[in-house]
Amino acid sequence: MQHLGEDESYHLEITAAGALLTAPNPLGVLHGLQTFLQLVQSTPEGFAVAAMTIDDRPRFPWRGLMIDSGRHFMPLDVIRQNLDGMEAVKMNVFHWHLSEDQGFRIESKTFPLLQEKGSDGLYYTQDQVRGILDYARDRGIRVVPEFDMPGHAMSWFVGYPDLASGSGPYKIERHWGVFDPAMDPTRESTYQFLDQFLGEMTALFPDAYFHIGGDECNGKEWDASPRIKQFMQTHHLKDDAALQAYFTGRVQKLVTKRDKITVGWDEVLQPDTPHDVVIQSWRGQDSLAEAARRGYRGILSAGYYVDLNQSAADHYAVDPLVNGTAALSPAQTANILGGEATMWTEYATPEIVNGRIWPRTAAVAERLWSAQSVKDVDSMYQRLDTLSQKLSYYGLPYQSVSEQMLRRLSGYSDPVALQVLASVVQPPRDYAREELKSYDVFSPLNRLVDTVPPESDTARRFNEVAARIATGKAAPGDWEKARQWLLLWRDNDATLQPSLVRSALTVELVPMSHNLSKAATTGLIALDALQNSTPVDAETRKRQLSELKEFEKPEAVLLNRIVPGVEVLVQATKIQ
Amino acid sequence: MQHLGEDESYHLEITAAGALLTAPNPLGVLHGLQTFLQLVQSTPEGFAVAAMTIDDRPRFPWRGLMIDSGRHFMPLDVIRQNLDGMEAVKMNVFHWHLSEDQGFRIESKTFPLLQEKGSDGLYYTQDQVRGILDYARDRGIRVVPEFDMPGHAMSWFVGYPDLASGSGPYKIERHWGVFDPAMDPTRESTYQFLDQFLGEMTALFPDAYFHIGGDECNGKEWDASPRIKQFMQTHHLKDDAALQAYFTGRVQKLVTKRDKITVGWDEVLQPDTPHDVVIQSWRGQDSLAEAARRGYRGILSAGYYVDLNQSAADHYAVDPLVNGTAALSPAQTANILGGEATMWTEYATPEIVNGRIWPRTAAVAERLWSAQSVKDVDSMYQRLDTLSQKLSYYGLPYQSVSEQMLRRLSGYSDPVALQVLASVVQPPRDYAREELKSYDVFSPLNRLVDTVPPESDTARRFNEVAARIATGKAAPGDWEKARQWLLLWRDNDATLQPSLVRSALTVELVPMSHNLSKAATTGLIALDALQNSTPVDAETRKRQLSELKEFEKPEAVLLNRIVPGVEVLVQATKIQ
Repeated sequence: MQHLGEDESYHLEITAAGALLTAPNPLGVLHGLQTFLQLVQSTPEGFAVAAMTIDDRPRFPWRGLMIDSGRHFMPLDVIRQNLDGMEAVKMNVFHWHLSEDQGFRIESKTFPLLQEKGSDGLYYTQDQVRGILDYARDRGIRVVPEFDMPGHAMSWFVGYPDLASGSGPYKIERHWGVFDPAMDPTRESTYQFLDQFLGEMTALFPDAYFHIGGDECNGKEWDASPRIKQFMQTHHLKDDAALQAYFTGRVQKLVTKRDKITVGWDEVLQPDTPHDVVIQSWRGQDSLAEAARRGYRGILSAGYYVDLNQSAADHYAVDPLVNGTAALSPAQTANILGGEATMWTEYATPEIVNGRIWPRTAAVAERLWSAQSVKDVDSMYQRLDTLSQKLSYYGLPYQSVSEQMLRRLSGYSDPVALQVLASVVQPPRDYAREELKSYDVFSPLNRLVDTVPPESDTARRFNEVAARIATGKAAPGDWEKARQWLLLWRDNDATLQPSLVRSALTVELVPMSHNLSKAATTGLIALDALQNSTPVDAETRKRQLSELKEFEKPEAVLLNRIVPGVEVLVQATKIQ
Repeated sequence: MQHLGEDESYHLEITAAGALLTAPNPLGVLHGLQTFLQLVQSTPEGFAVAAMTIDDRPRFPWRGLMIDSGRHFMPLDVIRQNLDGMEAVKMNVFHWHLSEDQGFRIESKTFPLLQEKGSDGLYYTQDQVRGILDYARDRGIRVVPEFDMPGHAMSWFVGYPDLASGSGPYKIERHWGVFDPAMDPTRESTYQFLDQFLGEMTALFPDAYFHIGGDECNGKEWDASPRIKQFMQTHHLKDDAALQAYFTGRVQKLVTKRDKITVGWDEVLQPDTPHDVVIQSWRGQDSLAEAARRGYRGILSAGYYVDLNQSAADHYAVDPLVNGTAALSPAQTANILGGEATMWTEYATPEIVNGRIWPRTAAVAERLWSAQSVKDVDSMYQRLDTLSQKLSYYGLPYQSVSEQMLRRLSGYSDPVALQVLASVVQPPRDYAREELKSYDVFSPLNRLVDTVPPESDTARRFNEVAARIATGKAAPGDWEKARQWLLLWRDNDATLQPSLVRSALTVELVPMSHNLSKAATTGLIALDALQNSTPVDAETRKRQLSELKEFEKPEAVLLNRIVPGVEVLVQATKIQ
């Protein structure tokens, strides 16, 4: 069995005579082999590895990826593919979010109505789970299951309504969000149920850590119940947070009884929380620092939400030991175990999810493995490019899948013009998507926003070129490169429009394609002005910038990410 | 349970009011649903299907695909993906070739050394097989297992050497070909073993048909054994064929004992073969006709060997009821049950195999389903294009896999120039590959020949355009199209060469890339001459044609398939 904090170091020595990998235990061997694989290159004479010596060990002992199988069920293939990806980037904790309002995803033999009524038939059998546990262990990965409670638990109540605080009946939730139903913390029967359930699940999952969720319980169902209000009064529980702390304390004892250590989200940290509980922070480093200062061990997830379509650079910049945590004493710092990338799946089907997780999760993995001082962003992006190729050979072909989806979207026609548009757009970041359009469990995720990667590489590169041009630091080829891109984007609309209107799936892209052309035209004018040192009058520039401002707005739930680069070029025409 | 010859017809009526699918039984419903799916189109208003009425039924009751899991083991995913593909093209028999000299691929509980010593650990458990049987049945597909005997059985002898005619010991065969070892038909212990083994396997596979192979037993191990020679004399068995007939007769009784019908390759047809044996013909329609005339039922596979890199048009042109079979009486014709595409896997790993099977197997499927008169090749190729897209959405993304392999081959660099070369080359047809290079079980199949489809669509289109130009029937755009292609091919070499020499995997392509450029240059000269009606002197033409003849030869186990089109253009310069 694998434990938190084992020595994962390895020593790799590559000479003309051969490669020697040594490590104090198998985890180091696994990591060293991945490093070795990264070093293999094709040469005219065959495969080769440069001579070198590497001494390597991780900075943090907890380097995780959470996948939410609750909101959209993720088939075993997807789980295995991600375990392969984690192995490649030396992550060592797979945090499996197994229950949600929208689905209870694992077979319980003790309480079979959990999966029978709460999963739409989409759940993992215990045999399948054991298969995943073996698969993970073979890759040096611990599996920490999460059963979210007392909130986010609607799917439990479909089969077992007595667990809930309200009177039911309950249905599997079909919308996204935070909902009122919560387990009833006042009834002994709740704990009797959980005792048996946790007995079953702690026996199935061998890891020493066990996650009980605890996030986003809004307490409304409690507030609505006179019986529960009465209980709170009797037990001197002054508010819902106190009631949840009471609940967490009781559940934590049931977990401890099985010699497991409880993990929970920020909310489980209350005045009386037992000190062996591990806090997973979705709130940020300050919240994590607060826990560490009080003697709790913690894991950072704020800043590592890979479902939120932030850039790899953004995730890479988040360090578990900056901001609030930077001021901790060495002993307190040791309480920071590491971090976890989290993939929530409101907007991710099995087809989409890998392209949301990868390659950006590799930036998180590197942050958690490598020294704090390793933070050059350009170099990180180069490694992500290489990794994307490698992961596709290892059976994680998210780039190909995205291309396939695009071909499907283009309706079997030549997808090149749609690819040009796709290459410069991005899904909106953070929680903007839910404001732009209404989605639920049944929404088909088959539009361009679901097809494109969270981060446009082309736009990133264009924006870099534009910044260099605007600041007079153009590299050789920058001008030509910018012009080629802008011409391509200006002219693409004419080719693309006829095919966009042929399908209900693409007709929403008409304005975006049109505006891309207009933005590129403006960009070309600015480029000409800059190249010829011809000033642009203030009025024109103002009009251009105000039009570009419009193009920054989402269209078809997508952002045109080259607009910032064009704005930079236009702004630069001022200083001629 | 599904039976041979069930009514698979369906009636589909699509009107403004809705779509109505009726069928006498579930098989027709499955087929009708696939037709319906083919009809769905994207429109500006959403998905739509044109109004129509279809009455449809298959021409032959046995429409199969054979996959050889023996030479290269094929994981369950590959099997399931192909069952999905078969469902899409309405095939109804999956013929599973489960044992070979190179591997015994299924768990036997009675004789566990079969898989333990004969499979390198690569075999299907009986539980997994049952999973596949269910999966196939849900798609209207029968599963006919094949255990090849008495030849092609070396892997059996590793664990059970007494089954063989020689003295052993035996090892799993690592080369490709026809080998001497064969089961010993003279010992009663052989039949006792097979009796138990067939008892186990006929119980596992529910289908009424059971395939015992029987192909390519060269008899050499028999000839080398005085004991076996003696047996033949005693039993008046005049030659090896007679001895094999004796063996087949004994085995057939063991199969019949379990109420199963025996299927075997051509060789099992001997003077005394029982009349319920079904003959699968790899030899051709004449052999099949001979069987049908003698009252045996038969299945055609000659002409449907999709591993041999023939064109879809070639397979499509092969009809079970032409040539020898055309002269049969109606009663004899009824003995022709249909056909099977066969995928032998000397040159196919799990990564490669789907791109070898698809989309060309769809041409075989159509031949076996549709009327004999449906045979327009251009129209068939259009359907294959559409099908390739659809199959990729159904989880058979062989096109993407091929692109991925090409990216890997290009060593992470921009693969566009390599794609250009890849788009015009093909693996050699039939059995030419084994003459060009030495391969065995361990040969990594990671070169360009393993990456490209068996048939170059680009070359096919170019050759069509060239033929139209040469015969004065150029369609609008043909001249321009031909010129663009030739320019691309002429100039590609300069871009590609530097990256080819960087890797041992691609350095072998240097001459091919160079010759493509030269052939294209010659093509452009011919095109100019034809367009300007400038005659080319006979001497030049002769020199050009002799150079092109050289370019027809395989390089790096690949054929340049645009050469025929260039030759056609050059030849046409004569008649100016």
